[in-house]
Amino acid sequence: MSDLPTAVDILEEGPREGFQIEPGPIATADKIALIDALSATGLKRIQVASFVSPKLVPGWADAEDVVAGFTPRPGVDYVALWLNPKGLERALRFRGRLAITGSISVSASEAFSKRNLNRDQAGQLEAMRASIAAHRAQGVAVTRISVMAAFGCNFQGDVTVPQALSALAGAMALAEESGSRIDRVVLADSMGWANPAHVERLVGAVRERWPEPRLTLHLHDTRGLGIANAHAGLRMGVSAFDAAVGGLGGCPFAAHPGAPGNIATEELVLLCEEMGIRTGVDLEALLEAAALAERIVGHRLPSALLRGGGLAPLRQGALAG
Amino acid sequence: MSDLPTAVDILEEGPREGFQIEPGPIATADKIALIDALSATGLKRIQVASFVSPKLVPGWADAEDVVAGFTPRPGVDYVALWLNPKGLERALRFRGRLAITGSISVSASEAFSKRNLNRDQAGQLEAMRASIAAHRAQGVAVTRISVMAAFGCNFQGDVTVPQALSALAGAMALAEESGSRIDRVVLADSMGWANPAHVERLVGAVRERWPEPRLTLHLHDTRGLGIANAHAGLRMGVSAFDAAVGGLGGCPFAAHPGAPGNIATEELVLLCEEMGIRTGVDLEALLEAAALAERIVGHRLPSALLRGGGLAPLRQGALAG
Repeated sequence: MSDLPTAVDILEEGPREGFQIEPGPIATADKIALIDALSATGLKRIQVASFVSPKLVPGWADAEDVVAGFTPRPGVDYVALWLNPKGLERALRFRGRLAITGSISVSASEAFSKRNLNRDQAGQLEAMRASIAAHRAQGVAVTRISVMAAFGCNFQGDVTVPQALSALAGAMALAEESGSRIDRVVLADSMGWANPAHVERLVGAVRERWPEPRLTLHLHDTRGLGIANAHAGLRMGVSAFDAAVGGLGGCPFAAHPGAPGNIATEELVLLCEEMGIRTGVDLEALLEAAALAERIVGHRLPSALLRGGGLAPLRQGALAG
Repeated sequence: MSDLPTAVDILEEGPREGFQIEPGPIATADKIALIDALSATGLKRIQVASFVSPKLVPGWADAEDVVAGFTPRPGVDYVALWLNPKGLERALRFRGRLAITGSISVSASEAFSKRNLNRDQAGQLEAMRASIAAHRAQGVAVTRISVMAAFGCNFQGDVTVPQALSALAGAMALAEESGSRIDRVVLADSMGWANPAHVERLVGAVRERWPEPRLTLHLHDTRGLGIANAHAGLRMGVSAFDAAVGGLGGCPFAAHPGAPGNIATEELVLLCEEMGIRTGVDLEALLEAAALAERIVGHRLPSALLRGGGLAPLRQGALAG
């Protein structure tokens, strides 16, 4: 009836996403403290910084200090985000501390691409071509394609499965043309439009056409369906997810302030572990990291589990009582 | 691969649950305003009041005034809660306005029953027998059994499928003995312990043993898995759910204040409608009712969708633009 994986890989995006969107400045030491707390939870991949223009994203002006400052834990991959050759160059100075993976992004919604990046379809292709070349110039292979707005877009409306496939096909063709071997495709529900049936359809269609690359679901909980969508992905055998501790990050496209952005890592971990799917994460330690994140940003984060509390202490109490 | 229903029935429990748990007093007129707003959304069944002791639940001392005050809408069933003969008697005075259904409750967790109701297993059976007799004395047939803590319990820990079946079997036997014909079984995840795999197992096991009665899932989102659990229920063909607008009600058993209680009706409606399952509910009208509920209680409700906003206005905007 379903094809549940036995284990999943989680990319923790909380530090990068969360500290980018916060209106007030976050101290470098606090960013480092959260990364170090996350390193101790069993998470195996943590996105620690964004090498973007400090003029555009003042919250990450201290990217170098954060990356230099955290304490790497053996067995954990630390990754960063960049959007242009300058950012890649900054990241490469930390080759020893960061796992460097070349990635290109395409938006399945042209309206989103136009509005967010001022690029039409031809402009998107040109940007991807330039990005592949810039990576190659630094000796970094592009192995990953992200499809943004793969399920829908606040500016365009619904994004159909054929539209998402077409965007991905364009990126795949460019990658092939340049000799890049894509081993990972990220389907991103950037604005919270997905539902479980749509997840099944798109995952099925992508797998059928490109059976080789591993799939990652990047899901947002903007409208409360994020964990149900993750469940649908698990049922399709998807075994890699992006998430953000506490639901750090929020959603800049929501109707009202305070809407969730990325699904909360702890809820994804609870979902998996309760269904017998290994995450390698100590949920109680992760909930402590979420509480730390909440203290750092100084306001309530969207995670329900952070309020409800984990089941392990209750199980232990029941055993003891 | 799944057995999705074409339509679902929703029992809206927000007014009853929500106004019971709020610490401050809620004006009778506000309760009535919310019920009237919900009546206009397309919801077909609304729980409007609790006929319980005003000493135990001061928030429902005005149950009579609320029930006398709302404006019934043709085609909508209004229901109420009672826990003893006195409460039933109070409800029966409103036979014209309320749909009266006889129901008995059993806890699948003895620890919960002991702690909440001071009843062991024998005490539970005795209470159900007395309840059936009290309903019969008023000419009300008992047709519904609710299994509380059917998935787990903060005091006992995990509740296994055999434990839940055994509690239900006891109630079923009593009902049969008294000549009651049970046409509805409610499986309640009272403290937010369920996960999608557990929902599948329990629903499957109950169906196998008692194929006749229709199943309702009463799910809580205490730990963020509520909508994923609803998705699992839908996949099993479950077509009746309890929910509370805005996530009104909260969870008295959560680790920290502010945890969600019942799943938010609007998120359930979005889940269903986006998957092509009819609810009969106008989601935008329901979101307005949720915003009204939030203004009435004076604090943020747990619903993510209330923050994120519905998709219909974005789809319309995209069409227009």
